[in-house]
This record gives sequence, C-alpha cells and structure tokens, in this order.
Amino acid sequence: MERTVYINGEYVSESEAKISVFDRGFLFADAVYEVTAVLEGLLIDNHGHLERLERSCRELGIKLPVTSEELTEIQKTLIEKNSLIEGGVYLQLTRGCEGDRDFSYSDDIEPTLVLFTQERALINSSYAQKGIKILSMDDLRWKRRDIKTTSLLPACLAKQLAKQSGCDDVWLIENGLITEGGSSNAYIVTADDKVVTRPLSNDILHGITRASLLQLAKDFDIEIEEREFTIEEAYEAKEAFVSSATTFIWPVVSIDGKTIGSGKPGSLATKLRDIYIKMAIDTAR
Amino acid sequence: MERTVYINGEYVSESEAKISVFDRGFLFADAVYEVTAVLEGLLIDNHGHLERLERSCRELGIKLPVTSEELTEIQKTLIEKNSLIEGGVYLQLTRGCEGDRDFSYSDDIEPTLVLFTQERALINSSYAQKGIKILSMDDLRWKRRDIKTTSLLPACLAKQLAKQSGCDDVWLIENGLITEGGSSNAYIVTADDKVVTRPLSNDILHGITRASLLQLAKDFDIEIEEREFTIEEAYEAKEAFVSSATTFIWPVVSIDGKTIGSGKPGSLATKLRDIYIKMAIDTAR
Repeated sequence: MERTVYINGEYVSESEAKISVFDRGFLFADAVYEVTAVLEGLLIDNHGHLERLERSCRELGIKLPVTSEELTEIQKTLIEKNSLIEGGVYLQLTRGCEGDRDFSYSDDIEPTLVLFTQERALINSSYAQKGIKILSMDDLRWKRRDIKTTSLLPACLAKQLAKQSGCDDVWLIENGLITEGGSSNAYIVTADDKVVTRPLSNDILHGITRASLLQLAKDFDIEIEEREFTIEEAYEAKEAFVSSATTFIWPVVSIDGKTIGSGKPGSLATKLRDIYIKMAIDTAR
Repeated sequence: MERTVYINGEYVSESEAKISVFDRGFLFADAVYEVTAVLEGLLIDNHGHLERLERSCRELGIKLPVTSEELTEIQKTLIEKNSLIEGGVYLQLTRGCEGDRDFSYSDDIEPTLVLFTQERALINSSYAQKGIKILSMDDLRWKRRDIKTTSLLPACLAKQLAKQSGCDDVWLIENGLITEGGSSNAYIVTADDKVVTRPLSNDILHGITRASLLQLAKDFDIEIEEREFTIEEAYEAKEAFVSSATTFIWPVVSIDGKTIGSGKPGSLATKLRDIYIKMAIDTAR
C-alpha cells in the first residue's frame, strides 16, 4: 500500500507526491529539513526538532507557513494515516517556487512544505547491537553546518565511500579535529570515563539528541567534556559512539580499521542508549 | 503561453513539469547542472558545457543517461518548441529517485534529467552597459567548487545579501584571496594591462566562458596572468570584470563601494566582451 505524503496542505499518495522542477529546493538546495523519530507511534524529542527548524528558517530568511502546533498535527496525522509505529517523520521546507530559475528571490515567495513517514526498526537495530565501523575523511562541507539544510551531497558521498570501504559511516575531520559524523554527532569516552564531544559552533549540527544526552548525562552523573578531539585521541578511546534523531546512540567499534576499546559496544554507550530511549518514550507519552 | 519543459524523455508544459519529492536532487542536492547561453537561437559554447557535465558526472558517479549528441538534440528541440531566440537552456541531472529517502544509493539507480529554456536579453544587457557593483564576502561554500552541483544555497544567500546592500553580485574571499563571483569567474586588469584571474583548482568553477576568454586573449595578444589576487589588489585595479555562460563578460565598476578605474566599464572588458560574442556566434553557426 502506498504511503500518504503531505505537500502544502494536501495529503496525497506517494506516487502523486511531486513538486515543480522550478522549486528552489530542487534547483538551489534552498531548503531546510528535520527528522523526528517515532517510537510506539509517538514523536520523540519533537519539540527540539521544531525549535531547531524555526532557528534554521530564521538564519536563512525562509518563512515557516505553519505554527509548531499545526506542524505537530500534520506529523500526527501522517503517523495515523500510515499506521506508523516505529521509524521517523521527515519534514522539508523549501524557500518556495516562483515559476522560474533565479538566484535571487522576492520577499513574498510562498514556501513549499513536504512531510512523509519512514518505517524503520530503531530499537532493535543490528547496528546498536553490534556497533558500527567508522571511516574518517576530510570534512568538505560548507561552513554553516549549524543550519540543517538539504545541501547533503558531501554527506552522501562520504557515507557511500565508507560503505564501499566496508564501513558503516564516516567521521569528518577538519584541521586535524573531528567535527562530527556523516549525519550524527561524534563522541569518545576517555580512560577515566569522561564523555568528550565537540562544543557547539557553526562547525557542527546542534543535535537535538545531543542536547538530550547532555542533560541525561548530568542527571545520571556521567561527566561530559565539551571540547575538540583529534582522530588519534579517538583511536585510543575507551569507547566511541554517535548520536542522531533516528539512531539515538550507536556504539562505534572501529575507526579506520583500528579497534575501539574491546571491539564491542561500550558499556557507557549502551547505558546511555537505554536510558535515552526509556526517557524519550516516557516524555513523549 | 506555457513553456515546454523536458523531463526524462518527455516534453511537458511547465505547469506539469514535476519531480517526485523522493528525488535525490530534491532531498540531498545530489545533482549537477549546466546552463548554455542561446544567441540568435544558437547554442553558445555548448560543447564545453556538455564536456564539463560529463566531468561532473564522473566525479560524483552520476550516470549520464544520454549521449552529448542526444542532449544537444533535446536542447535544440526545446529552443524550437519555445521559439527561443536569446536566453539560455538550463539542464539538471540528479542521481535519481529510489522511492524513499536514504543517504546511500544503489549502483543501478536511474538518473533524472530535466531541461528548460529561459528567455533573457543577453547582448543588450543593462549590466553590460553600465557595469556591476560588487560586494565582497567570505566564501562559505564546500570545497569541491570545480563540480557544478546544485548545492547553491551559499551563492543564493550571498547574492541576496549583495542585492539588499545595493550591489549586483558578490566576490567571495577565502584566506584573504578572491576565489570567484557568486555565479561567475572573477578578473582584474593591472596597471600594465595584464588580465589576472585565479588559476583552476577545486576552489573555483572551471568556467567554460573563462576557457574561451583565455583562448581569445591569446589570439588577440592580451596578456593573461593566472594567479591568486587579494581584495586589496582588486580595489586598486585598472579594471575588473566577471565572466559566465549567460553574462559573457560584465564589467565591474565598484567593489565594496570603492570605484574601480574610472567607475565606468573598462575598455579591455568591453573589448573582450565584444570579441567573445562575435566569436561565439560565428562558432555556433
């Protein structure tokens, strides 16, 4: 059965879910997006995602045509129409379409809003159970990674290269320091059980799951050090892991072929994942 | 009357020219493009554009579903169907659409090919006659600017900011040096009539018009120096100009509010523009 997709006020079947070739999202990647995880049919950490969407829109001067409450209603309607229990709701907002191609745009351009659901096993993920293998490579992306835009070609290329090399994802390096993963924030655990992750700046995405984890860590007396770290420090780490909206936490078991810790998912990563999922569902209920 | 647009083998009216929201061009900016100018109904420098398209595809592993000859046929058909005399033919090729959203892609994905025409006065352009005002700003783009991808949000933002500041376009600066314009290559003319432009690398687009101009300059004994230059050197230049497929050459008359040369289009820029247009039409005939 076809999924129902939302486009600009209408619910249509996925094969009819089309946008104009003149849409700025298609021609210029002039668009922002968010992905909210769904567990037990509930939106996870959604408030944070919609807040970040508002920030992305402000940074780029893209109009948000609906309120957060209306967006949440659309998300819930899609979950219901598609009987989604576990997976995610994808949301993309483009600056809009003026019927022709021009770098510049008028102030009264009407944005294009698209949402669809994706069914996926998030809790019983084999990657969570066995951990992921990371390949490091140069960070080629533009300099405003704090804005969640659809300029994702560098991430696609990096992830594809990792896959071709027998790895599951990438960690990106700039000036010798890890920025983040291909679509996740990056963490290492030091010998004395401190969780190290790069501080927020324009260099990385301000992860919603990252923010929740940092709060959780505080609540559970896990020490967090927000500082930059090198790939060499990562090779020697006791544990490593990534966080994102739909992976929550995935342990990292190797980087560039070098075994991290015991080569099995670390205990701190596993513990954080478990308490995050429990907390997230409890909060969403 | 509606334009006719080409999508994947079909000629449709522009209001029916739509692509799936699951197309990777829309979701990931996983796409390349080219714009070929049209003068007197003829494709200008088209061979260079189609060659660069092939290179972009090779660099990204995107399949080109048609030959250069077939592409040229499509371009000519659109020019005819839309009775285009002067303007451009836009061509965008995305990696394709697999019916859902995933960073990674399969090897046998079928690309999406879109072409449309745009009517515009290129020869009698007021910008060519009066020159353009440039605003300089930081180059925030990704590091593979030699590949002509649709990751154009940084260019859109920069150009919009220039417009809001009463300027016509931007010159981008990295490490104190001009890379290029928002959608053009950048040139200055020294006191002793040498044309200076940044050498080719991954830092700038390998302009097709740039290549033609460099050849023309040789033929007309105009000295070219391919080297980097600073914004300060540009402020003091005798002339400045930009080149691109649909502007050909536009003289620059001010940068950051500082008058360049006499504040009027420079004689070398004007001469180069004239001989380029004449040569381009002659070659296309």
